[in-house]
Amino acid sequence: EIFDKITLLESCRLSESNLKNKNVVITAGGTREAIDPVRYIGNNSSGKMGYALAQAAAYAGAHVTLISANSHQPKPNGVKLVPVTTAKEMQTAVEAEFAKTDVVIMAAAVADYRPEETFDHKIKKDSAESLEKITLVKNPDILATLGQQKQNQFLVGFAAETTELEAFAQTKLKAKNADMVIANDVSQAGIGFNSDENAVVVISADEAKVVLPKAPKTVLAQKLIELIATRI
Amino acid sequence: EIFDKITLLESCRLSESNLKNKNVVITAGGTREAIDPVRYIGNNSSGKMGYALAQAAAYAGAHVTLISANSHQPKPNGVKLVPVTTAKEMQTAVEAEFAKTDVVIMAAAVADYRPEETFDHKIKKDSAESLEKITLVKNPDILATLGQQKQNQFLVGFAAETTELEAFAQTKLKAKNADMVIANDVSQAGIGFNSDENAVVVISADEAKVVLPKAPKTVLAQKLIELIATRI
Repeated sequence: EIFDKITLLESCRLSESNLKNKNVVITAGGTREAIDPVRYIGNNSSGKMGYALAQAAAYAGAHVTLISANSHQPKPNGVKLVPVTTAKEMQTAVEAEFAKTDVVIMAAAVADYRPEETFDHKIKKDSAESLEKITLVKNPDILATLGQQKQNQFLVGFAAETTELEAFAQTKLKAKNADMVIANDVSQAGIGFNSDENAVVVISADEAKVVLPKAPKTVLAQKLIELIATRI
Repeated sequence: EIFDKITLLESCRLSESNLKNKNVVITAGGTREAIDPVRYIGNNSSGKMGYALAQAAAYAGAHVTLISANSHQPKPNGVKLVPVTTAKEMQTAVEAEFAKTDVVIMAAAVADYRPEETFDHKIKKDSAESLEKITLVKNPDILATLGQQKQNQFLVGFAAETTELEAFAQTKLKAKNADMVIANDVSQAGIGFNSDENAVVVISADEAKVVLPKAPKTVLAQKLIELIATRI
């Protein structure tokens, strides 16, 4: 019995997370890029994964800033919530925190492109300035920018792919100078965007890949936060 | 005292709505038109106005079918909810109900345009098939189509405008062969899209305009349903 207690104590000690009192920034949701006051280009991210990660990180004792774009998820407990709409707003919010941050998890789906022009009035369907073509320009690449700027921050990206999941994740890890990329296949029904479940492959620079099979996002988030805690 | 009671009885009788047992179809939310499995063109409609109208119509005793595009509002009591994503899906759902419907209220923000092509895989930012330009094609005009098909249905449209509110609403009423157009100014902060409040002008073919000043959408919905009940 005494050994059981020692084991239990040991496991409690081990379970004190490396994330305790660390500053963690998590982005969530999907940015929206306005075409005019009514229309926008958006994406299918619900924010569920990012919110679950924020909750798990807060439970692990981290000081969590959740930068959330257009999500309808309930606010996690004990988390500082910063609402944003566009990719540029998200970039500004992340960069404001970056210097004092230990871990950044970019779970949001950030629009790669935005309309070149945003009209200040609703474009009428039959007007001369009709919407037959929308010209897009590239948005800032927040993850890549952070990868260039980083000092000691541990930088985690997400790769939502529909083909060649691991290959794209490996490429993303190197190209963005990230420390970890969590890849998920958004083409599979029942996982990923808007689902309550997900299945991911975790790619790191110097570690073997970790496959986390299909599970509720809350469970996956817990495992991912534990994994990140062992790597920082 | 006897007169008070008569007055009260009279007002109770008057308050039995013309909408009792009528079939009412209400569209709500905003349609989304896919660019690829991740990206879409959407709009800022929250569905709050349509959901409030559905609840008010159900309380008035109508059989309500709520055709809802991408709204996160809670389901109103006693209403049949039909979820849709795109304008085409909304059109199919409305037309399936139209023949047996007495009142149609098109409160949804339906995308005027959709991408000409929807990719079956996520377009990579740096691929040859990049998203520098999106070519759009016009969506079916559901309100206009119903206006052409209508027999005895009472047809209500919404006009979300940022300029020349009443003029556009008058034009819309005639062009779509609608019986009523409810116009709101989406450029004003604090009302319209995503707000809990709204302010509208109601335009009908043979009636004076009705101005309903800023109020919670639930209150406005009640007044609009009462107004529609007096006109059918």
